[in-house]
Amino acid sequence: MKKLWDKGYELNSVVESFTVGNDVVLDQALIPYDCRASIAHARMLGKIGLLTAEEVEKLTGALETIIQLHRQEKFTIRPEQEDCHTAIESFLTEKLGKLGMKIHTGRSRNDQVLTALRLFYKDQLTVCDKQVEALIKSISAFTEKEGATVFPGYTHMRKAMPSSIALWGRAFIDSMEDNRKLLRLALELIDQSPLGTGAGYGVPLELDREYTAKELGFARVQENPVYVQNSRGKLEITILHALSQVMLDLNRIASDLILFSMPEFGFFELPDEFCTGSSIMPQKKNPDVLELLRARYHVIIALESQVKTQVSNLISGYNRDIQLTKEPVMKGFDITRAGLEVAELLFRHLVVNRERCEEALTDDLLATERVYALVRQGVPFREAYQRIAKEY
Amino acid sequence: MKKLWDKGYELNSVVESFTVGNDVVLDQALIPYDCRASIAHARMLGKIGLLTAEEVEKLTGALETIIQLHRQEKFTIRPEQEDCHTAIESFLTEKLGKLGMKIHTGRSRNDQVLTALRLFYKDQLTVCDKQVEALIKSISAFTEKEGATVFPGYTHMRKAMPSSIALWGRAFIDSMEDNRKLLRLALELIDQSPLGTGAGYGVPLELDREYTAKELGFARVQENPVYVQNSRGKLEITILHALSQVMLDLNRIASDLILFSMPEFGFFELPDEFCTGSSIMPQKKNPDVLELLRARYHVIIALESQVKTQVSNLISGYNRDIQLTKEPVMKGFDITRAGLEVAELLFRHLVVNRERCEEALTDDLLATERVYALVRQGVPFREAYQRIAKEY
Amino acid sequence: MKKLWDKGYELNSVVESFTVGNDVVLDQALIPYDCRASIAHARMLGKIGLLTAEEVEKLTGALETIIQLHRQEKFTIRPEQEDCHTAIESFLTEKLGKLGMKIHTGRSRNDQVLTALRLFYKDQLTVCDKQVEALIKSISAFTEKEGATVFPGYTHMRKAMPSSIALWGRAFIDSMEDNRKLLRLALELIDQSPLGTGAGYGVPLELDREYTAKELGFARVQENPVYVQNSRGKLEITILHALSQVMLDLNRIASDLILFSMPEFGFFELPDEFCTGSSIMPQKKNPDVLELLRARYHVIIALESQVKTQVSNLISGYNRDIQLTKEPVMKGFDITRAGLEVAELLFRHLVVNRERCEEALTDDLLATERVYALVRQGVPFREAYQRIAKEY
Amino acid sequence: MKKLWDKGYELNSVVESFTVGNDVVLDQALIPYDCRASIAHARMLGKIGLLTAEEVEKLTGALETIIQLHRQEKFTIRPEQEDCHTAIESFLTEKLGKLGMKIHTGRSRNDQVLTALRLFYKDQLTVCDKQVEALIKSISAFTEKEGATVFPGYTHMRKAMPSSIALWGRAFIDSMEDNRKLLRLALELIDQSPLGTGAGYGVPLELDREYTAKELGFARVQENPVYVQNSRGKLEITILHALSQVMLDLNRIASDLILFSMPEFGFFELPDEFCTGSSIMPQKKNPDVLELLRARYHVIIALESQVKTQVSNLISGYNRDIQLTKEPVMKGFDITRAGLEVAELLFRHLVVNRERCEEALTDDLLATERVYALVRQGVPFREAYQRIAKEY
Repeated sequence: MKKLWDKGYELNSVVESFTVGNDVVLDQALIPYDCRASIAHARMLGKIGLLTAEEVEKLTGALETIIQLHRQEKFTIRPEQEDCHTAIESFLTEKLGKLGMKIHTGRSRNDQVLTALRLFYKDQLTVCDKQVEALIKSISAFTEKEGATVFPGYTHMRKAMPSSIALWGRAFIDSMEDNRKLLRLALELIDQSPLGTGAGYGVPLELDREYTAKELGFARVQENPVYVQNSRGKLEITILHALSQVMLDLNRIASDLILFSMPEFGFFELPDEFCTGSSIMPQKKNPDVLELLRARYHVIIALESQVKTQVSNLISGYNRDIQLTKEPVMKGFDITRAGLEVAELLFRHLVVNRERCEEALTDDLLATERVYALVRQGVPFREAYQRIAKEY
Repeated sequence: MKKLWDKGYELNSVVESFTVGNDVVLDQALIPYDCRASIAHARMLGKIGLLTAEEVEKLTGALETIIQLHRQEKFTIRPEQEDCHTAIESFLTEKLGKLGMKIHTGRSRNDQVLTALRLFYKDQLTVCDKQVEALIKSISAFTEKEGATVFPGYTHMRKAMPSSIALWGRAFIDSMEDNRKLLRLALELIDQSPLGTGAGYGVPLELDREYTAKELGFARVQENPVYVQNSRGKLEITILHALSQVMLDLNRIASDLILFSMPEFGFFELPDEFCTGSSIMPQKKNPDVLELLRARYHVIIALESQVKTQVSNLISGYNRDIQLTKEPVMKGFDITRAGLEVAELLFRHLVVNRERCEEALTDDLLATERVYALVRQGVPFREAYQRIAKEY
Repeated sequence: MKKLWDKGYELNSVVESFTVGNDVVLDQALIPYDCRASIAHARMLGKIGLLTAEEVEKLTGALETIIQLHRQEKFTIRPEQEDCHTAIESFLTEKLGKLGMKIHTGRSRNDQVLTALRLFYKDQLTVCDKQVEALIKSISAFTEKEGATVFPGYTHMRKAMPSSIALWGRAFIDSMEDNRKLLRLALELIDQSPLGTGAGYGVPLELDREYTAKELGFARVQENPVYVQNSRGKLEITILHALSQVMLDLNRIASDLILFSMPEFGFFELPDEFCTGSSIMPQKKNPDVLELLRARYHVIIALESQVKTQVSNLISGYNRDIQLTKEPVMKGFDITRAGLEVAELLFRHLVVNRERCEEALTDDLLATERVYALVRQGVPFREAYQRIAKEY
Repeated sequence: MKKLWDKGYELNSVVESFTVGNDVVLDQALIPYDCRASIAHARMLGKIGLLTAEEVEKLTGALETIIQLHRQEKFTIRPEQEDCHTAIESFLTEKLGKLGMKIHTGRSRNDQVLTALRLFYKDQLTVCDKQVEALIKSISAFTEKEGATVFPGYTHMRKAMPSSIALWGRAFIDSMEDNRKLLRLALELIDQSPLGTGAGYGVPLELDREYTAKELGFARVQENPVYVQNSRGKLEITILHALSQVMLDLNRIASDLILFSMPEFGFFELPDEFCTGSSIMPQKKNPDVLELLRARYHVIIALESQVKTQVSNLISGYNRDIQLTKEPVMKGFDITRAGLEVAELLFRHLVVNRERCEEALTDDLLATERVYALVRQGVPFREAYQRIAKEY
C-alpha cells in the first residue's frame, strides 16, 4: 500500500522509521474515531453532490466493516502505512477500487487527524469526568462511615489543631469538584469541529462544515483554519492541565496516606491485598500502590511540559513536531484513568484506626483553643497567644 | 517590632534571612489587599460582638491610613518583620496599643495571606482579561486594514497554499477568545473566600464567613479549611496555565513575525523605533522585542513548572514550601501584562509589505487548486493528486 | 510462579496491574544484564563458601541458558512475575529446584535491579559515545567537502557577517566534543558497583563486593548502601542531562537546516528520499525528518524533568516512586541513538547549493568590514561605527 | 549616554523597557568582571599595535577606577544604558573622550557579555565547590560525633533494617563528592575564552586571542565563534545541572530531617533558634528552614528548565532570547550558595536524640537477620524468607 502522499520515490528506510515513530501502535485507539469522521465526511460529500448516494453507502459500509474488524482486534496498521489514516484509506481502495480514492476529497490528513483526535479526546474526557464522579462518591461513602473520627491536623508536618476524617475527606471532594470544572472547560474548548479546514488554509470546495460538525456531535465549527492548526498542541496542554490537576489531588491523597499509615502514626490502614512485600525483608508490607500513585503525578506533568515546549518557537501552520503531542495526551489519559480507578478502590477499602487517631490527640493540639478561651474572657488575642506560648 | 509568632527567642540570623527570602519586596504589592481584608475582618468581629463599634472604627481608620501611606510609597516593610502582615499588625499596635493586638482574633496568618493573595490575583486576572480584549481590538483593527492581502500559507515551513493577513490575524483573535475562557475559569476558581479558616483547621469562634466574603466581593465562601490550604499552589497552577496559554499565542505571533519580517521574506516590517542595533555591525536592525516576546513564554512555563512540582509529594495542610508559590505567580502576571502591552502596541504599528506578499505567491501554491479542478471534472481525488504531483 | 516477596496472599488485581506497570515490556532489555550480574553473584557466593562449586556451575549454566533464550527471543516475562528478576529466579527454581532458591542469598531486589540497570546504562552510554564520534566524522567529511563555501552568518535571524560551511559545521563538532565529556562523566559516575548493598542497609553476610565489582567490570565499589539507594534517579538525571545536551545540538542543527533549506534561502538541500509529502498538496516536499529531530529534544528534556521531580521530596532509602525512573532513561537512550543515527546519515547526504549561498552574500554583510577599514586608518571604533551606520 | 548601537533614532519607550528587562539590576554583579575583561582586551589591543602604551594605561586606569567605584557601591547603571557594558563604555568616553570610543575595537557586545559572564561563573562555581567542601566537613564532624547511634533504616517509608547516623550522614558525603565532579566539569567546560569572536563570526582584525585568554586565566581559547554563540545557554544548562544536583541532596536531607524530627519519631532535633512559630497556635515550633531548603530544589530545577527550553528551536548564532538565560543562572548560584550555607550550619547544630533512636529499634527490623541465621544453617534463602515471613 502506498502512502497518502506517494509520489513514486522511496523514503530512506532510516528516515522512514524515524518519522513514523510509534504511530502504528498509538493509532489503534483512533481507528473507530477516524472511521466515524470518515463516514460523516462521506455523507457530507454526498450532500454537496461530490459523491452519489450509492457511493456514500458503499464507503460508509466499508468504514463500518473496519469498525467491526477493529472491535475484533483484526484491523492492523502496517508500519509502511505510517498511521491509521493511511491504513483506512488503503482498505477502502483495496475493497472499493477508485471509489476509495475519493474519500480524501475535500480534506487533508491534517484536519482528518485532528478530527479523529478530538472525538477520541472528547470520549476520554467524558470517561475521566465520570471516574472523578465515582471517586467523589467513594470518598463520600468513606467519610460518611468514618467522618466523625477526630485526628490531628498538621501544619509544617507538625501537629497543629484537631481535624477529622470528614474534614480531610471532604477537602478532596471539594477539590475534585473544582477539577471537574477544568475537565469541562477542556471539553468545551476541544468541542469544535476542525473537519473541512484542510491543511490549515481551507479547501477549494464548498464543503458543508456545519453538517459534519453536527453529524459528529461537535458543539460548533472551528471556523479559522489557521487557528485549527495553531490550536493543535495548545488545546492538548489544557487537557493535560486538567488531568494533572486531578493527579495532583491523588498525589496529595497518596502522600497523606503513606505518612499516616506508617505504623508510627497508624491513623490509616491498607488491607493486605493492597500491599506488596520485599524480596529480602520478610516482615515488610509496603504501600507501593500509594507510592506509584504519588509518582504518576510526576509523569503526567512531564508529559504536559513536553507538549508545552514542543509547540513553542514554531511558526503558524502545521509543523511535524506537533505529531509528538499525540502520545503524551494519550498517556495522560491512561495515567489519569488508572489513577482514578485505583483511588476509587482505595477509599472503598481504606481502614481508619480509631484508637490510634484518638491516642494521637495530645494536649498541645488544644493550645489554640486555650488562647481563645482567654480571648472570650476579653484578653486581646496577641496577649493571650503570648501567655499560652510561654508554656510550650 | 516582634514577629506574629514571637515567643521570646531570637532566630538564627542565617536562618532568618533564608526563611524570609524576598517577601519584604514582593509583599509591597499586597499591602492594600491585606488592609482591605483586615477591614472586612474587623467589621465582622464587630458584627459578632468581639469588637465594639468604636474599636472597629479605629482599626478601619488606621488600616485606611496604611492604604494611603502605601499609595504615597511611604509604608515600608522592615526585614525583621518578615512580611506585610506583620508590618501591618505592628503599625496597628504601635498606633492603637492593645486594640492592635485584637485584629488577629479569629484568623491565622495562613488565611490572611490567602485572602490578600486572592484579592490581588482577582484584580490581576481582570487586568489581564482587559488587556487580552485590547489586544483583540488591536489585531482586529490591523486585519481590517491589511486583511485582504494574500500571502503564502506554510506547513512544515514550506509554502503550502495561499493564506491572507485576515486569516492569519483572526486565528489569533479566536485563540485569544479561547484564552479568555481560561482566564475566567481561573478567576472563578479563586473567587472563593478563605478568610475564617485559620491555619487550615478552622477557628474556635463563631465567625460570620459569609459576611466577610460578601464585604470583599468574593462570589462564595470556600467552606472546607483543609481544602483552603490544599488549594494554595494548586489554584496558582491554573492561573499560570491560563497566563501561559496567552503567552504561547504571543510566542507564536513573535515566531511568525521574526521569520516573515526577515528581509528574505519581507511580508511584515517593524518600524525603526521597535528595532535595536548591534554594537559591532552598523547595518543591523534587530527584532529584539519579538525575540524577547518569544523568550518570555519559556520563563512563564518554567514558573508554572516550579509551582507544579513545589506542591507535590507534600501532605495536606500548610507546608512552608508553599510560600515560594507567591513569587512565580506575581512574576507570571508581570510577564503576561508586559507581553500583552507590547503585543497590542505591535499590531498598531506593524506594517504589511503588500508587494513582497504578492511576489511570494508563486505557482506551486496553486497545486492543490489544480488537483481540485480535476476533481470537479470527476477524477477521483487521489488520482488527481498523483497526476499533479508528477509535475513537481 | 510466585513473586519474590510472596507471603501467601493475593494482591488485588487492579493494584497488581497498577504497580507492575509496563516493567514486563521494559525489562526485556535487562535480561542479559541481570543474568551477567547473577552469574557474578553466584561465583562470589561460591568464593565465600555459601555455594558449592557444583552449585555455582549449575546456576551459571542455567543463567547462560537464559541469555541464549533471550537472544533467540524465547525468554518471556509473564505479567504475574512483575519483572525480569522474578522471571529469572523463577526459571532457576523450576529448573534447579531448591538450588534456585539460593541465588537470592545476600542480595535484595533493590541492589539487583540497580546492578542490571547500571550495566545496561554503561553499554548504552558507550554506544552513544561511539555514535557521537561517528557523527563528528560525518560532519568532518561534510565540512571537508563543502567547508570553503561562504554563506551569511545570522544574528537575531538577520544577516550579520559572512560565515562559512566550515565554521558552521565545526561549531557542532566542537560542541559534540564537549558533549562527550558529559557522556564520559555520566559513565564514570555510574561505574560503581551497587551489588551487595541489599535493600539499602547492607546484608548480614560477609560478601566480597570487590570481587563482584571486578567480575562485572565496574571501576569501583559504591560503598555506602544508603547512597546506593539515594543515587538511583539522581545518576539517571546526569545521564539524561548528557543525552539531552546531545539532543540540543541536534535540535539546533535541525533548526538551521529547516530554515536554510527553505526555497526562500536554498543554502542547503535534502535529497528526495529524506522528504515526505502532503496528502492534499501534491507539490510539497517536507523536511519531516528534521522537524522530528528538532521535536525529540522536547521529549528528552521532559523525560529528564520527570526524573528530576520524581526523586524530590522523598526521604532517603528506596521508595517505589523511583521505579518510574527506569522508563525515561531507556527512552532517553532510544531517542538519542535514533537521533544520532539520523543526524549522521543527514550529513552524509546533505547538499550545499553553492550558487544560492553566493547570491545571498549581499553588501550589508560587509558593513562591519567597512568599519574596520576606517579603524585601520585610525578612526576610533565607535566613531567609525556611527559613520557607517548612517548609510543603513 | 547613548547605547552602544546608537544610530540616531529613539526606541519606543514601551519597547525599550521591555527589552532592557532587569539587566540594570543583574549586571551590578558583572561590573568587575567586565572591567577585568576590558583591561585584558585593552592590553591585547596595545600588544597588536591598535592602542599606544599610553592609551592602554589610561584605559586600564579608568577601568580600575570603575572597579573601585563598584566596590564602594558608587557605580550605577542607568536604565537608558541597558546594561553594564554600555555603562562602562560610557564612563570611559566621558572620562577619556575619543579614547573611550576605541575600547570596543575588535569585539562585539556578544563576546564581551560572554567573557564577563564566564569569569563570573568561574568564580561562583569555585565558591560553590568550596561550600560543598565545607558542608562535607560539617557532615563529617557530625557523623564523627553521632555516627555510632543506630536508628531504623526505611524503605517505602516503612521500617526496614537497622541503619546508623554514620551510614546516613556518609551517604550525603559520598553524594556531595560526586556532585563536586559535576561542578568541576561545568567549570572545565566554561573555562574557555570567548573573547575575540565578535558577534559570532569573528572580527576582521588579527587579534591575539591566546593573550587575552591567558591574561584572564582561561584554560584555553574557544576557537569556533559560532560555537561560542551556540554554547551560550547550553553551558549554562550544565552549570544549572550541577547546582541542581547539589540542591537535590539538600532536598533529601531536608526531607529526612523534617520527617525524623517530627515528635512522632524524634530521632533528630533542631535547636529553637532554627524554628519559627505560628501566628495562631502558640505551641508550634516549625522547621521552616528545612521546608524552604526542600522547596528551593524546585526553584532551581525550574530555572534549569527555563534555560533548557529557551535555547531550543533557535537557529545558530546569537538570538536575543538567550539574554534571558543570565538571570536563571545567577539565581541558581544564589539559591545554591544560600542552601549550602544553611545546610552547613544545620549539621553543626543538629541534635540526635539517642534514646528515641534506640526506642525505635523494634524487633521487626531484625527479621532479615533472622532469615540469614537460617541461611547460615543451610536453609535456601527463599525458603528461610518464607518461613520467617509467616510470623509477620
